[in-house]
Amino acid sequence: MNIVIIGAEAAGMSAAAKARRTDREASIVVLEQSEIVSFGACGLPYFVGGYFDDASYMAERSADQFVQSGIDLRVRHRVEQVDAETKTLRVRNLESNEIYTESYDRLMIATGASAIRPPIANLDLGNVFFLKTLADGFGLKEATLADSVQDVVVVGAGYIGLEVVEAMKERGKRVRLIELSDRVVKDSFDPEISELIADEIKRQGVELHLEESVLSLQGDATVTGLVTDKGQYKADLVVVCTGVLPNTQFLKDTGINRLSNGALVIDEQARTSLKDIYAAGDCATVYHRVKQEQVFIPLATTANKLGRMLGENLTGAEKTFPGTLGSAAVKVLDIEAGRTGISEADAKAAGMDYKVVVINDKSHTNYYPGQSDIRVKLIYERESKKILGGQLVGRRGAVLRVDALAAAIYSGMTTEELGMLDLCYAPPFARTWDALNVAGNVAK
Amino acid sequence: MNIVIIGAEAAGMSAAAKARRTDREASIVVLEQSEIVSFGACGLPYFVGGYFDDASYMAERSADQFVQSGIDLRVRHRVEQVDAETKTLRVRNLESNEIYTESYDRLMIATGASAIRPPIANLDLGNVFFLKTLADGFGLKEATLADSVQDVVVVGAGYIGLEVVEAMKERGKRVRLIELSDRVVKDSFDPEISELIADEIKRQGVELHLEESVLSLQGDATVTGLVTDKGQYKADLVVVCTGVLPNTQFLKDTGINRLSNGALVIDEQARTSLKDIYAAGDCATVYHRVKQEQVFIPLATTANKLGRMLGENLTGAEKTFPGTLGSAAVKVLDIEAGRTGISEADAKAAGMDYKVVVINDKSHTNYYPGQSDIRVKLIYERESKKILGGQLVGRRGAVLRVDALAAAIYSGMTTEELGMLDLCYAPPFARTWDALNVAGNVAK
Repeated sequence: MNIVIIGAEAAGMSAAAKARRTDREASIVVLEQSEIVSFGACGLPYFVGGYFDDASYMAERSADQFVQSGIDLRVRHRVEQVDAETKTLRVRNLESNEIYTESYDRLMIATGASAIRPPIANLDLGNVFFLKTLADGFGLKEATLADSVQDVVVVGAGYIGLEVVEAMKERGKRVRLIELSDRVVKDSFDPEISELIADEIKRQGVELHLEESVLSLQGDATVTGLVTDKGQYKADLVVVCTGVLPNTQFLKDTGINRLSNGALVIDEQARTSLKDIYAAGDCATVYHRVKQEQVFIPLATTANKLGRMLGENLTGAEKTFPGTLGSAAVKVLDIEAGRTGISEADAKAAGMDYKVVVINDKSHTNYYPGQSDIRVKLIYERESKKILGGQLVGRRGAVLRVDALAAAIYSGMTTEELGMLDLCYAPPFARTWDALNVAGNVAK
Repeated sequence: MNIVIIGAEAAGMSAAAKARRTDREASIVVLEQSEIVSFGACGLPYFVGGYFDDASYMAERSADQFVQSGIDLRVRHRVEQVDAETKTLRVRNLESNEIYTESYDRLMIATGASAIRPPIANLDLGNVFFLKTLADGFGLKEATLADSVQDVVVVGAGYIGLEVVEAMKERGKRVRLIELSDRVVKDSFDPEISELIADEIKRQGVELHLEESVLSLQGDATVTGLVTDKGQYKADLVVVCTGVLPNTQFLKDTGINRLSNGALVIDEQARTSLKDIYAAGDCATVYHRVKQEQVFIPLATTANKLGRMLGENLTGAEKTFPGTLGSAAVKVLDIEAGRTGISEADAKAAGMDYKVVVINDKSHTNYYPGQSDIRVKLIYERESKKILGGQLVGRRGAVLRVDALAAAIYSGMTTEELGMLDLCYAPPFARTWDALNVAGNVAK
């Protein structure tokens, strides 16, 4: 078996490692156009914020570990064309500039995604950064250290935008956050959660601008300010966090099935529409267990899980993916939020017959130090009461509780069952009726 | 409908409140021999430790709230006899010493449990305490404040014993913990978890004695020391935390079905063996969802849940209890542990065909502050891989993760499903593969 994997980040390297363990005989070639292997971008905001300085912390494993296990890892190799008929790849060695042909029995596309360049004028000015690659991280971190950088503008209030806000506050900057839509983390959370996150970042002195569109950056060589549809602001540094797009352009002539944003549509075994070509990670869709359809939710967790499964399928297994729940979490300053399943917006968009409940409760007993307000929202089927989604927000104890909801939603648990579920209690951790029980019981 | 409830703690008052909401017409009488209502003993170690001073924090609701809702709450009333044939009670008003007869259509026994008095000589000396009632709490707290009290001995290393150890360390005492069995929290946790808890309390200077039996206390009026089967120790104060026994002695002539420890055996609707007599809370058994049998696990969580359900059944509903999982948690000094489902010891005792997995992992990413070691143990069916029980221990992030296992076990999830379950990830909360995923994947 001749396996070729394009891309050496989470999905690709999880697949390579698992394939190696599963089949000691197969030839496994990994082609990676950068020189970076097994890198997780999730650490970048914390790297920039000064929580740590050793960038190797962001890699799961080293290139050496892969090579020693018998994986033919070729960095600085770019695949420029895929021919699904002849099962060959045109590969460019970026060191030598040599072009050669590589053939495969089974091919995995794991090329990830790249930061979106929104239609803002002058994005190429100095001190304007995206935050997706390790190089982005080094550049932004260095720029942040300059004393001259005092006013930072973050564009985009998704997960990464919020984490960059925290990093910049940690660095003592004045921070302005500009978001096109009417809420923070709108794609993931409903308004009841977004509003508490927004309250917290404003309370900590971040200037939050919603429903505002950045038109252009100003400055000669280096950014000095920016112009929006509502105003003009000073900026010594700008970080653009407006999402990602799958790296699948090189496949556009193959006829492979893609979503409108370019994501490769896969099936439950991670097969693309082309024979013997598989895909996983941020370049591909993922099956959503509640929506029961392929969706684009680019997250490291899913990339790892699908990659691992694909590592077996590439060597001949026929595992099927149980599905993502869209589980995700974010911490910004002193607040944390997590979500799983579908949001109310999702339920509405899908025309489902649903109900919601929102409760305000506490993380644990009144008398034990560090009690936090906690808000729980559940989305559930009106008739069956089956839980479809859940979101929590609070200063502590919010995110890990979402994991219990993830297990509940995975299994089709009802609100009534959640209300009576035997959750852990001791005064430092919960109340006798955990906030999740209360939400389940209040849901009618 | 004429409902009488004996006992005004968690189970009784949950039932009364729910019955009131469910049936506005029913007569609801609650007879409580103490003057305390809706009191939760779980707060006592923290009250003693000085985390708070307002004892009312330990009550869910006040007596006034119950009375105002139309519940006939009679404190200082003791039920001395139950006649299930005539459906009458002999009640003593402890204020007036008057005895009268009360009749019922449906009766709920919710008399709770009392601290076990182990066979140790001289338990009545001064500065010897149990910790079950509010009076115990006041007495122990006051005694603890005396400067003369420096050497404290805690007898029994269950949940309460460990929490008292923490309280006494908080108060600056020298603490010795003496346990009859070979491990701490042996009834709930397997050795792999107990050992880490023991390591932590020893690391913080607690003298831990295992497999040691306290024979007698020494002193004239006040305790000054104690003698065990292995030695003799100074003690200015002794706290005895050797478990509880159901308060059901007053029923022994009724022929009601009890376990050997006195716990009233109930069915899935919380009915005892006597017609129209129900029971819930620490005086009764509870259905265990994994063991599929009635067990004695006296916990506030279950008392509240069964009490609430019974509040409906007393007014005519026929709800069935989905079962406890024995979920429980404890924090002592800088370590926390939680458990759900059955332990390996349970599985072995039941002759089940099971396997276990124990992994050591981390609470979250290496680069975010506050990372903790975390240990996960799973107990699962050998053939089906269905998860039967789980235990976690660590400095942080251990207990709330148990809730996800509770939902998983409730639903019959397999280790393989847990391995691929979409749990929340962000660097402050987890690794991309959560410790629970890893445990699921390592289980073979």
